[in-house]
Amino acid sequence: MVNGIERPLDLLNQSKGKEILVQLKSDKQLVGTLLAFDIHINIVLDNAKEMQSNEVKRSIGLTFLRGDTIVFISPASTALKEEK
Amino acid sequence: MVNGIERPLDLLNQSKGKEILVQLKSDKQLVGTLLAFDIHINIVLDNAKEMQSNEVKRSIGLTFLRGDTIVFISPASTALKEEK
Amino acid sequence: MVNGIERPLDLLNQSKGKEILVQLKSDKQLVGTLLAFDIHINIVLDNAKEMQSNEVKRSIGLTFLRGDTIVFISPASTALKEEK
Amino acid sequence: MVNGIERPLDLLNQSKGKEILVQLKSDKQLVGTLLAFDIHINIVLDNAKEMQSNEVKRSIGLTFLRGDTIVFISPASTALKEEK
Amino acid sequence: MVNGIERPLDLLNQSKGKEILVQLKSDKQLVGTLLAFDIHINIVLDNAKEMQSNEVKRSIGLTFLRGDTIVFISPASTALKEEK
Amino acid sequence: MVNGIERPLDLLNQSKGKEILVQLKSDKQLVGTLLAFDIHINIVLDNAKEMQSNEVKRSIGLTFLRGDTIVFISPASTALKEEK
Amino acid sequence: MVNGIERPLDLLNQSKGKEILVQLKSDKQLVGTLLAFDIHINIVLDNAKEMQSNEVKRSIGLTFLRGDTIVFISPASTALKEEK
Repeated sequence: MVNGIERPLDLLNQSKGKEILVQLKSDKQLVGTLLAFDIHINIVLDNAKEMQSNEVKRSIGLTFLRGDTIVFISPASTALKEEK
Repeated sequence: MVNGIERPLDLLNQSKGKEILVQLKSDKQLVGTLLAFDIHINIVLDNAKEMQSNEVKRSIGLTFLRGDTIVFISPASTALKEEK
Repeated sequence: MVNGIERPLDLLNQSKGKEILVQLKSDKQLVGTLLAFDIHINIVLDNAKEMQSNEVKRSIGLTFLRGDTIVFISPASTALKEEK
Repeated sequence: MVNGIERPLDLLNQSKGKEILVQLKSDKQLVGTLLAFDIHINIVLDNAKEMQSNEVKRSIGLTFLRGDTIVFISPASTALKEEK
Repeated sequence: MVNGIERPLDLLNQSKGKEILVQLKSDKQLVGTLLAFDIHINIVLDNAKEMQSNEVKRSIGLTFLRGDTIVFISPASTALKEEK
Repeated sequence: MVNGIERPLDLLNQSKGKEILVQLKSDKQLVGTLLAFDIHINIVLDNAKEMQSNEVKRSIGLTFLRGDTIVFISPASTALKEEK
Repeated sequence: MVNGIERPLDLLNQSKGKEILVQLKSDKQLVGTLLAFDIHINIVLDNAKEMQSNEVKRSIGLTFLRGDTIVFISPASTALKEEK
């Protein structure tokens, strides 16, 4: 699963088109499909949902997210698996 | 809906002239029509309204917003759809 | 009203000599006449007044304001219209 | 009074040798005579006094103040006028 | 044990493929296998677990972590040894 | 006393070898003899003491202090005079 | 004791291989042997211990510490002397 990750951004590149969990510096989380990112870790999510304590709080759809608000990005979180 | 988004700023470019939801690092949100943005994600909104807990708190009209106060920008939020 | 705003700083340029509302990252606001600004969004206001909860707290006259303390700048806020 | 202010730093330049009020990001304020400043808005004050709620808390004399702790600088604050 | 560490990043380089403890600026910690890092100390962890007060709170699997959220990284923490 | 201060760093240069008061962004203060500084306002103090509410809390001796934690540096504080 | 300190980093250079006290922006402190540092004040400590209120809370061994979390670094703190 971890083949081809030599630099941190390689993981984001592999995650394009897939559902990811984004933990924000506030306690909120966003879940959505990763469409694009840049070197500032600004990202665009499709079908984004704002979550708090594992519950969907709000659907925000197509969303631009500033990189400096992010703690971590996980394409493989159990939080994502549990949802399905 | 997501055609043509290769870089995060492409979404902002597509959203010019449309109503967007802007989530600030404080818990406030601004809703307004996106007129302009730059690489710092400084933006100008027309007919901007300051919202808290989905209620309009204040009309602030034409507004310059500093990029470093922004968490996310959504042109497709259900919060926007519910208002109409 | 929005003619000629292609980049965010165009709005500040159009607002020179006019009264603006400046929302700070602290909950304070300044109201005053915009005299000058630079690319860091450092600004100079004339006849500046510090406001909190829509009340004038202090007259601070001619004032230099650091850009990194600003959330938004509005030349057309209803807060300004209500005052007149 | 506002002649010659084309850029924000022009106001600081005009204020050299004069008493200024400096509002810090903490709620403290410094009052003192502006001796020098640089592009980071680092400043040197002479006869500086630390104030809180309009009362002198401490005399700190000749003082170097880091620019990134400043909200605004006012050479014409009523707070200064009331003191005299 | 400390051979070959002339610059701070040498320790991260030696820790590739090993389990590390990452203390975040929030009180949370992540434990996982270090796969990659860059000069911003952005890192990728495999089999990452979010911990609080030495208890596993959530499995987040393969994870990209922004460098500016990190306090310290320890490949040799007793917290790791106690777990085994 | 203020001769020769054209730029803010001139004050730090004049204060080398003298006792200074350093106010930190936390409410703590350090008092010590200034040995060295750089353009980031990183400084080295000798015989440094950590103070809170004008009382010595801890002697920390020779100390490297990061510039981004500093609010102001005063070589002439009455806090220093009162101590002697 | 202070010979040879012309620039702040000279103190860190002299402290390599010695035990140092590192005060973090959070109220925590780390004590350990300084192995390496860079211009961002990122450091590597050997035998690092996390302390709070002068008590060892956790042994974290060999540790990479981000520079932007540091307030001060003291190779000569009485806190260190008292421990021995």
